[in-house]
Amino acid sequence: MSSLYGNSIKISIFGQSHSDSIGVVIDGIPAGEPFDAEKLKAFTARRAPSNNSLGTPRKEADEFEVLSGVANGKFCGAPFAAVIKNTNVKPGDYSEFSERPRPGHADYTANVKYHGANDFSGGGHFSGRLTAPLCIAGGICLQLLENRGIYIGAHHERIGSVTDLRFDPVNVSKADFDALVRGRVTVIDESKLSKMEALVEECRSEKDSVGGVIECAVIGLPAGLGDPIFDGMENRIAQIVFGIPGVKGIEFGNGFDCAKIRGSENNDSFAYKDGKVVTETNNHGGILGGITSGMPLVFRAALKPTPSIFKEQNTVDLTEKEDCTLVIKGRHDPCIAVRALPCMEAAAAIAVYDALLDHNKTNI
Amino acid sequence: MSSLYGNSIKISIFGQSHSDSIGVVIDGIPAGEPFDAEKLKAFTARRAPSNNSLGTPRKEADEFEVLSGVANGKFCGAPFAAVIKNTNVKPGDYSEFSERPRPGHADYTANVKYHGANDFSGGGHFSGRLTAPLCIAGGICLQLLENRGIYIGAHHERIGSVTDLRFDPVNVSKADFDALVRGRVTVIDESKLSKMEALVEECRSEKDSVGGVIECAVIGLPAGLGDPIFDGMENRIAQIVFGIPGVKGIEFGNGFDCAKIRGSENNDSFAYKDGKVVTETNNHGGILGGITSGMPLVFRAALKPTPSIFKEQNTVDLTEKEDCTLVIKGRHDPCIAVRALPCMEAAAAIAVYDALLDHNKTNI
Amino acid sequence: MSSLYGNSIKISIFGQSHSDSIGVVIDGIPAGEPFDAEKLKAFTARRAPSNNSLGTPRKEADEFEVLSGVANGKFCGAPFAAVIKNTNVKPGDYSEFSERPRPGHADYTANVKYHGANDFSGGGHFSGRLTAPLCIAGGICLQLLENRGIYIGAHHERIGSVTDLRFDPVNVSKADFDALVRGRVTVIDESKLSKMEALVEECRSEKDSVGGVIECAVIGLPAGLGDPIFDGMENRIAQIVFGIPGVKGIEFGNGFDCAKIRGSENNDSFAYKDGKVVTETNNHGGILGGITSGMPLVFRAALKPTPSIFKEQNTVDLTEKEDCTLVIKGRHDPCIAVRALPCMEAAAAIAVYDALLDHNKTNI
Amino acid sequence: MSSLYGNSIKISIFGQSHSDSIGVVIDGIPAGEPFDAEKLKAFTARRAPSNNSLGTPRKEADEFEVLSGVANGKFCGAPFAAVIKNTNVKPGDYSEFSERPRPGHADYTANVKYHGANDFSGGGHFSGRLTAPLCIAGGICLQLLENRGIYIGAHHERIGSVTDLRFDPVNVSKADFDALVRGRVTVIDESKLSKMEALVEECRSEKDSVGGVIECAVIGLPAGLGDPIFDGMENRIAQIVFGIPGVKGIEFGNGFDCAKIRGSENNDSFAYKDGKVVTETNNHGGILGGITSGMPLVFRAALKPTPSIFKEQNTVDLTEKEDCTLVIKGRHDPCIAVRALPCMEAAAAIAVYDALLDHNKTNI
Repeated sequence: MSSLYGNSIKISIFGQSHSDSIGVVIDGIPAGEPFDAEKLKAFTARRAPSNNSLGTPRKEADEFEVLSGVANGKFCGAPFAAVIKNTNVKPGDYSEFSERPRPGHADYTANVKYHGANDFSGGGHFSGRLTAPLCIAGGICLQLLENRGIYIGAHHERIGSVTDLRFDPVNVSKADFDALVRGRVTVIDESKLSKMEALVEECRSEKDSVGGVIECAVIGLPAGLGDPIFDGMENRIAQIVFGIPGVKGIEFGNGFDCAKIRGSENNDSFAYKDGKVVTETNNHGGILGGITSGMPLVFRAALKPTPSIFKEQNTVDLTEKEDCTLVIKGRHDPCIAVRALPCMEAAAAIAVYDALLDHNKTNI
Repeated sequence: MSSLYGNSIKISIFGQSHSDSIGVVIDGIPAGEPFDAEKLKAFTARRAPSNNSLGTPRKEADEFEVLSGVANGKFCGAPFAAVIKNTNVKPGDYSEFSERPRPGHADYTANVKYHGANDFSGGGHFSGRLTAPLCIAGGICLQLLENRGIYIGAHHERIGSVTDLRFDPVNVSKADFDALVRGRVTVIDESKLSKMEALVEECRSEKDSVGGVIECAVIGLPAGLGDPIFDGMENRIAQIVFGIPGVKGIEFGNGFDCAKIRGSENNDSFAYKDGKVVTETNNHGGILGGITSGMPLVFRAALKPTPSIFKEQNTVDLTEKEDCTLVIKGRHDPCIAVRALPCMEAAAAIAVYDALLDHNKTNI
Repeated sequence: MSSLYGNSIKISIFGQSHSDSIGVVIDGIPAGEPFDAEKLKAFTARRAPSNNSLGTPRKEADEFEVLSGVANGKFCGAPFAAVIKNTNVKPGDYSEFSERPRPGHADYTANVKYHGANDFSGGGHFSGRLTAPLCIAGGICLQLLENRGIYIGAHHERIGSVTDLRFDPVNVSKADFDALVRGRVTVIDESKLSKMEALVEECRSEKDSVGGVIECAVIGLPAGLGDPIFDGMENRIAQIVFGIPGVKGIEFGNGFDCAKIRGSENNDSFAYKDGKVVTETNNHGGILGGITSGMPLVFRAALKPTPSIFKEQNTVDLTEKEDCTLVIKGRHDPCIAVRALPCMEAAAAIAVYDALLDHNKTNI
Repeated sequence: MSSLYGNSIKISIFGQSHSDSIGVVIDGIPAGEPFDAEKLKAFTARRAPSNNSLGTPRKEADEFEVLSGVANGKFCGAPFAAVIKNTNVKPGDYSEFSERPRPGHADYTANVKYHGANDFSGGGHFSGRLTAPLCIAGGICLQLLENRGIYIGAHHERIGSVTDLRFDPVNVSKADFDALVRGRVTVIDESKLSKMEALVEECRSEKDSVGGVIECAVIGLPAGLGDPIFDGMENRIAQIVFGIPGVKGIEFGNGFDCAKIRGSENNDSFAYKDGKVVTETNNHGGILGGITSGMPLVFRAALKPTPSIFKEQNTVDLTEKEDCTLVIKGRHDPCIAVRALPCMEAAAAIAVYDALLDHNKTNI
């Protein structure tokens, strides 16, 4: 049902880019868990556009207000709700897109779906801005997971033609997350930071944009989370990750590369290590049969280039029913993969925490 | 909730590889739609192992019996249920895997999840055999879609190192589906048929296995299907496709390649063609903002090599708590991508038909 | 999942009596439907405490703000969200109930459920105040139903020992709804108005409270809404009506009386009237097999007396682990059935409108 | 979605009265719980028609076959599925009802809903026979609850004009359940057994039928089960109980009587008893704010008289579009409340067990 996700916790996201507010309701957080508002602010600030030039010049404070669900610094069992006011709205920027849909955007498809009644302003409910409430929900789940020793980290495995190293899928640790080099992009290999940043700037100056791949790892997970067939960890994570605008692909473990090799290369041998069952390699990305194996859960998601580019593009005029051209004005990130990084962590956190609660109910 | 899928229709799959039966319940098929049992038999037969050597030597008739939901040749509004008897069961083959989990299988993760109570025999509920009821559900949805002029086709874009052509994402037609070359694998480029088949046979003779990529296209779709954020077409299709055992990645349109290019290359211009809005290229794979654009919906899924290989492998003995080796005996496809082809069509059909019904309810 | 309801539309209610705000998110309203904010204000005002003495002296403006989901005066396909600020909060009134639970309230059960982390202030999420967002959602559904000629009316069939007439279940019409006598209570038989009001005042002056029964009718419904077994109209309406605090019973048609009579008395004969199939009596309350018959849908719900009374009561001290007494102070309606009237209409409207959308999706 | 119920466990019921089989799939039973097939047979046999004259003469063995979900005598984590073959089908009995709907049945409403495509034979999916799979699911939940010291009992509080005593809502115990007098009906007061049976026989001989009320109690429940607003215990139980054909009302605790009295009479004082918090009376029926209080959970459901009576009745001919008369032939219970008794226990067990699992997931 469109903007809801989850089994044990239910996330309901609302808002349009230029409506009064955007926000999220989270139903099902166990009562008594502590809520760290400052830590959540710090997390959501990572998604907010920075004052540097890689992010959009549009100023979004993204400061959330908690409406309900917390009492005495703890989640109180009632649904948690938080909103972010849309204070810096310029609806005038978007008026023409209702009749001249932007290539690569939802303008046309939403227009057909909603018979023209959708809110075109700022992309409406399809705006990347809706990832802000996703980050509120995800930031909360991250806190709750960290209380159980489960950590999530992500980096830019690729921006356009520039690639980073990958996480070591067997040994990736919290120390590796702490050692990530964070500039405008986030990388393992420090030498790639400036290359990626330069590429993004080049695209901006050319009125163009560029795509990227984000790699995300979850560590500290117990074995046994996830359910068979339609509710495995891959299904759950994929369902929420495709909720981040611009994601066009996802792969787990060695992903598409597993199709190229033999079973004898792809299978990960089991072994005992310090009394615990591990696998010696981790092509399976921490998931077998949809269920966590206890090894790091690793996935990568591909994000397309920002569809809002400032070059002239061909489109149609839906009123005149004829082809036309369009030049987009305004303010847009030249690379949505940049700010999508914390969103990816947020999405993974929600999926994992929900699976953790789901698993609980059968432990009777 | 594990083995359920869908919004407007609900698919509930049950059964273990060696239980009395496997089957499916489908709730929500509109009453009055015709049910073509013969056509469904023909479809499900495509998944069944053939008498050729690419499939598993295990003989599975996979003949379903309809238990309910049909009256006078039509769906009657009551839930549809069908079962397949497990008649050719050899439970003895699997007894050791409860303590010596097979690499790449769910033996270990299911053992942890279910505290050892899971049905190990034949992989239990995690067996590829559970795709037979998926194909029943999908075959029905395919019929219902075809009645509305919507068609689905799939081919082996890759088996190991051998690649096929891809569908033309702009112009792929029913004629292209009809022209697919169907041997043990299914390809666009006839010259690849024997190469792929030879590779699979080579793997079998080497007691090994190989992975593959399936490309799937849906044509004839109206624009406007799918919902924002968590229930877009990518989310829906990904959620069900990862229900096919062995899938480790999925991408839509140009997928991971979109991360490498610029927005000016990736954006698909809109244009009028014969009075209809189309895009001139189709990098978006028929989905923008989670909603169908009316262009062919194209996705690719990566399947890992069959984890059951007949070479000696390292694993653990969970009783002795020590490392050990394992040699799997029995009968297994050397390439699960081969028989996964109709499963992919089935999964896509269910996701698309469910979205079609969902869309209906708002047309008031 | 606690505070969510619905299939085709999803209602998510949040807030505590004394949190920053209370509110509702509604996902699934068809795009393009008009939104009449003034009409909604008028409806929600009916629930708000009046300046007369039957309602609570606590002043609740209950003025909602729309946060999202509307564009150009129409629902835009994105989730609708609205909040009501909690501006008149006196948390001090409630501090003792965390250790000395009020009889008849959720203080004790919520304390156990949430391990003491729940928000006791004002009853938290269990407050009758949470019916305000229910009325926002219901008021919207009422508008959407009225656009289709479907109307809902309700009256106080009983307040304590005073009973009103009942709706004529065969012929009840919009004119009957318009003719309802609305004072502090709402009745068919004008002579009962002052008697009911006097009884409520008497209870207040005696520091006591009183229960009541609300009868609700839905007219203009097409035959064919509702689904078999667990999703029939009775199931759907019962599920939401028990969401109104204090409801302890519900019956449809002649309800509990049907248990006393014979089949020959209870069966409603079918007949043609003006070319339309009707029943000559309506003991079935407009629902057969869970599905609407096209006759008026009639149900009654019993509401217990307000549990907050100002007489001394026996309870326990959870800290001292001993019996004790309690005198509640503050401001409370002596009869929750009074203000529950529009809530009942709201709940019915949501259930019916959701069933209407559900029905749509199978009309292909 | 019609024939599905539950949060943590999902019950999916399928089948028509005269389809090949009827059955149920249960998803979510915790792995490792023992499955006692003999005990389940004994429970489901209670619903089956006896060889005495109170039940229908139609012979229904109702012997179920387990298709999946069990391994080594335990639930194995995979969905449980069971079917009952429809072996004693006489479709000829029902052919005319597609055009001449029986008063009080779903013939007419289903005809409209499904555009005439529904399975009329034997009432199709609306047949009381569909309570057999409900009893399979409920019988399993009863076992799982009993393993935790939770017991459910029910008796006929009323058959037509004859009333039984009620359970003592404060002290009702397993001994009281064991002491129930079980003949063709089930009563507390032995003297009412023959009176109720005589009344049912009288109705049969007069080609008529009669209604009844079933009272059901759940004991041994912990405090804290159930969720606020739409997922309280009343909502959950009501939703499933209205899935039993013929139920037209439900009330909890003192139910409709609470509307007649004052708060000072209705409130149940808390007190310590043997170190445990109890209430001194139990007008609340064990539920406050939707959440169990630890006191016995008590509810009553009203069942209408069997609509199939053998007297001539007025109905319509949908083909000729004119009024007509109808005489039903065949075999029917003169009092559906008789065999509905175990169904009520089954429904309560499913609702309670599901709430128990739901509660588990938040205990982290």
